Amino acid sequence: MQVEDLSARQAALIARLSPLLPGPALLWRKEDTIPYECDGLTAYRARPMAVALPETEAQVQAILRACHALGVPVVARGAGTGLSGGAMPHTAGLTLSLARFNRILEVDPVARTARVQCGVRNIAISEAAAPYGLYYAPDPSSQIACTIGGNVAENSGGVHCLKYGLTLHNVLCVRGYDAHGEAVTFGSEALDAPGLDLLPLIVGSEGMLAVTLEVTVRLVPRPQLARCIMASFGDVRHAGDAVAAVIAAGIIPAGLEMMDRPMTAAVEDFVHAGYDLDAAAILLCESDGTPEEVAEEIERMTAVLRGAGATAIAVSRDEAERLRFWSGRKNAFPASGRISPDYMCLDSTIPRRRLADMLLAIQEMEGKYGLRCCNVFHAGDGNLHPLVLFDANDPDELERAEHFGADILETSVAMGGTVSGEHGVGVEKLNSMCVQFSAQENAQMLAVKAAFDPAGNLNPGKAIPTLARCAEYGRMLVRAGALPHPELPRF
Amino acid sequence: MQVEDLSARQAALIARLSPLLPGPALLWRKEDTIPYECDGLTAYRARPMAVALPETEAQVQAILRACHALGVPVVARGAGTGLSGGAMPHTAGLTLSLARFNRILEVDPVARTARVQCGVRNIAISEAAAPYGLYYAPDPSSQIACTIGGNVAENSGGVHCLKYGLTLHNVLCVRGYDAHGEAVTFGSEALDAPGLDLLPLIVGSEGMLAVTLEVTVRLVPRPQLARCIMASFGDVRHAGDAVAAVIAAGIIPAGLEMMDRPMTAAVEDFVHAGYDLDAAAILLCESDGTPEEVAEEIERMTAVLRGAGATAIAVSRDEAERLRFWSGRKNAFPASGRISPDYMCLDSTIPRRRLADMLLAIQEMEGKYGLRCCNVFHAGDGNLHPLVLFDANDPDELERAEHFGADILETSVAMGGTVSGEHGVGVEKLNSMCVQFSAQENAQMLAVKAAFDPAGNLNPGKAIPTLARCAEYGRMLVRAGALPHPELPRF
Repeated sequence: MQVEDLSARQAALIARLSPLLPGPALLWRKEDTIPYECDGLTAYRARPMAVALPETEAQVQAILRACHALGVPVVARGAGTGLSGGAMPHTAGLTLSLARFNRILEVDPVARTARVQCGVRNIAISEAAAPYGLYYAPDPSSQIACTIGGNVAENSGGVHCLKYGLTLHNVLCVRGYDAHGEAVTFGSEALDAPGLDLLPLIVGSEGMLAVTLEVTVRLVPRPQLARCIMASFGDVRHAGDAVAAVIAAGIIPAGLEMMDRPMTAAVEDFVHAGYDLDAAAILLCESDGTPEEVAEEIERMTAVLRGAGATAIAVSRDEAERLRFWSGRKNAFPASGRISPDYMCLDSTIPRRRLADMLLAIQEMEGKYGLRCCNVFHAGDGNLHPLVLFDANDPDELERAEHFGADILETSVAMGGTVSGEHGVGVEKLNSMCVQFSAQENAQMLAVKAAFDPAGNLNPGKAIPTLARCAEYGRMLVRAGALPHPELPRF
Repeated sequence: MQVEDLSARQAALIARLSPLLPGPALLWRKEDTIPYECDGLTAYRARPMAVALPETEAQVQAILRACHALGVPVVARGAGTGLSGGAMPHTAGLTLSLARFNRILEVDPVARTARVQCGVRNIAISEAAAPYGLYYAPDPSSQIACTIGGNVAENSGGVHCLKYGLTLHNVLCVRGYDAHGEAVTFGSEALDAPGLDLLPLIVGSEGMLAVTLEVTVRLVPRPQLARCIMASFGDVRHAGDAVAAVIAAGIIPAGLEMMDRPMTAAVEDFVHAGYDLDAAAILLCESDGTPEEVAEEIERMTAVLRGAGATAIAVSRDEAERLRFWSGRKNAFPASGRISPDYMCLDSTIPRRRLADMLLAIQEMEGKYGLRCCNVFHAGDGNLHPLVLFDANDPDELERAEHFGADILETSVAMGGTVSGEHGVGVEKLNSMCVQFSAQENAQMLAVKAAFDPAGNLNPGKAIPTLARCAEYGRMLVRAGALPHPELPRF
């Protein structure tokens, strides 16, 4: 689009939206829109034509109708903490900030549900439910800042989602507006719904099917007690197999995390969590529930971990020690930032039984690409967060890091996993989607998108690659000789 | 369609399919297709043009391609135990029996998964997993006969789905073919998938989006122990509130069922389960897990039930007594058959907190329609199975029973529930879908259906009503003066 076209479009949009919103709720000057040019994925940036900050449903509806009439793309935005660029603006579009929809509408302690507006922060739900001994289970690392609307868009996870499920498993109903500005409701308080169940389609759809304004979530009782086991292993094979053994024993820990030695070394230096630096890998394995349940589960997990070859086992004796065990895990990303100018965090998943294979494959890739990688995994559900360390100012290192990352993703898919566990696709993993899915599968998703939004107005260009993009990516990989798994990609 | 058109169509279909299948695998003579003319909903019948019984994936693919080319509707069928007519044939279509896809392909005790063909019976999965101490949790009453493919189509539940979830929550991956005969895969072994998550859309889609051939399910450890509480209540208000109190106390029982006095009287006469016939309602409340967990949970549930006003409480002392407590519940339907020539089983859901309101509303309807109703509820998840008793040979009784049923469904929706909890919509509840959903919502579902099957070849006319049908139903209700809730329906 030419600059003058864009400015004419912008003028038309402003003219249309101005009567709908009070002055401070509509931003379009460069200095006002710059703060919105990226989300948590700062490597990708774009400035929108305008940013709207509505306060009422009627305003949202009117904005959507206006944008639909003008053919202007709409990108909804919560707190902007997303890691895959799902809320990155569209240059010729409107960014719809829903930050002002921040009211908790109802907490029902008997039904154990909460009905909240989309802009309520994840942790604020748990705070509102705390007087009743309840909380909202999914706990992304960003939970102090991220909003429930964004969690719905990305189907966010967290350390505890192994036991308590992802956002999808904790949301009962989503209410909002479609691309045409029509009111829509997905799901209900019931366990099942007749007809096609569209709620699980909305959760994780990255703002492409509808704009979420209100969410009814399930609340769970705060456990009376939590204790954490820290187990050391002399090699990654035993550590990986121990994860599978815990699950195979019929135990679903409240959290089951793995860190390899490069990771524990980096965090120990930073937060002094008391990690065993002689261990090739450590596991953090949490139990929560009544004191009786926790005692019994800790005993069973300890036995399984010993049987799987743990060289040392420590069990938190009190809440302070439990939090100290977790402090290293929670500071893994900043700790990596201390030892490397840049790092790339991946988010792929693999079947649990392949954890050790993957760690060994990554060690081999370190040699191949001449870069270091620290590994921290949500091991219990096979969700990897390898951190590839590099210096972005060295173009050769940057390129090698990108190939390293692509290799990890494609190896994950080859092992039967996926390219994203909980951070979403956004703009970041569009190429990876070409590896994950066949042309036909991506076309099927695009057809479903079109069934909701035929004009393609809601968050266009995100999450699902076009067939042309996949074809181009395939040619690029072939040219670069960078197809680590000849049977992939399937386009 | 004229009879001669139909027979020409049939001849064309037979000619096309005959080379693809051995003789006994293609049925079209009247005497051969009669056994397929209905599923578990015997009130609705239709004979298909032909029945195909393929044995290989290649045959299924070829059949789908042929039917797509000819524009012949395809209705997939498992064991035919569905209760809503989802597998009822299309007069101008092909019934695709998948009974021969009955192999268990893999049981992985470490990953706790099983990969099975669609025609494997629900209970056969648990039998195959038993040597590893595992089982497949969803347990519809028909589990001895029903197939996993049918369970996927209807998102089947069961007594234990309160704790262990519906089919959706226990299926990891579905593989099959689309309306064009293209291979499709939905889901993976991973907890989350990038892009639009189509697996939850397939589960419960009643054969309208794709034909399922292979399913990977989650297995769970068989609990070491199960014990059951039988609690009596002097009135239904206390019984309903007790259900809400158990859940509000943070307990998720393995099963939580309610029966009212007419129901217990009917079953006690039949199976002598030892039910308290003085009680206005009884609850069956099961705990499973390790002996320590069960002991602790039984103690907590007992305290909650007493606090909620239980007049008598019995706890099963051994497995024989536990099975006896359940024998009444499991025989509720045949027991109703003994006291009435016919009964209509409904399947609506309501929020748990409305259980007592609903029982009282049904008691009022008994007077209004001059018919009796026995009630057995999956109370823990608010799924009702009222059994309206009537004599189908009396046209007036039949009509009153139909109005009674419609009143229950519409009251359920008005209370914030749904018209179907676990039996599906099929042909039975098409009109109810008009009550449950707005015209726009049904249109959205039809658009999603079209995104998978643009020609509308897979199980047409099921599960989602056309807009014309809803408009007609609305006019009919208005004419009959049978709109119990003026705010409904929303068309």
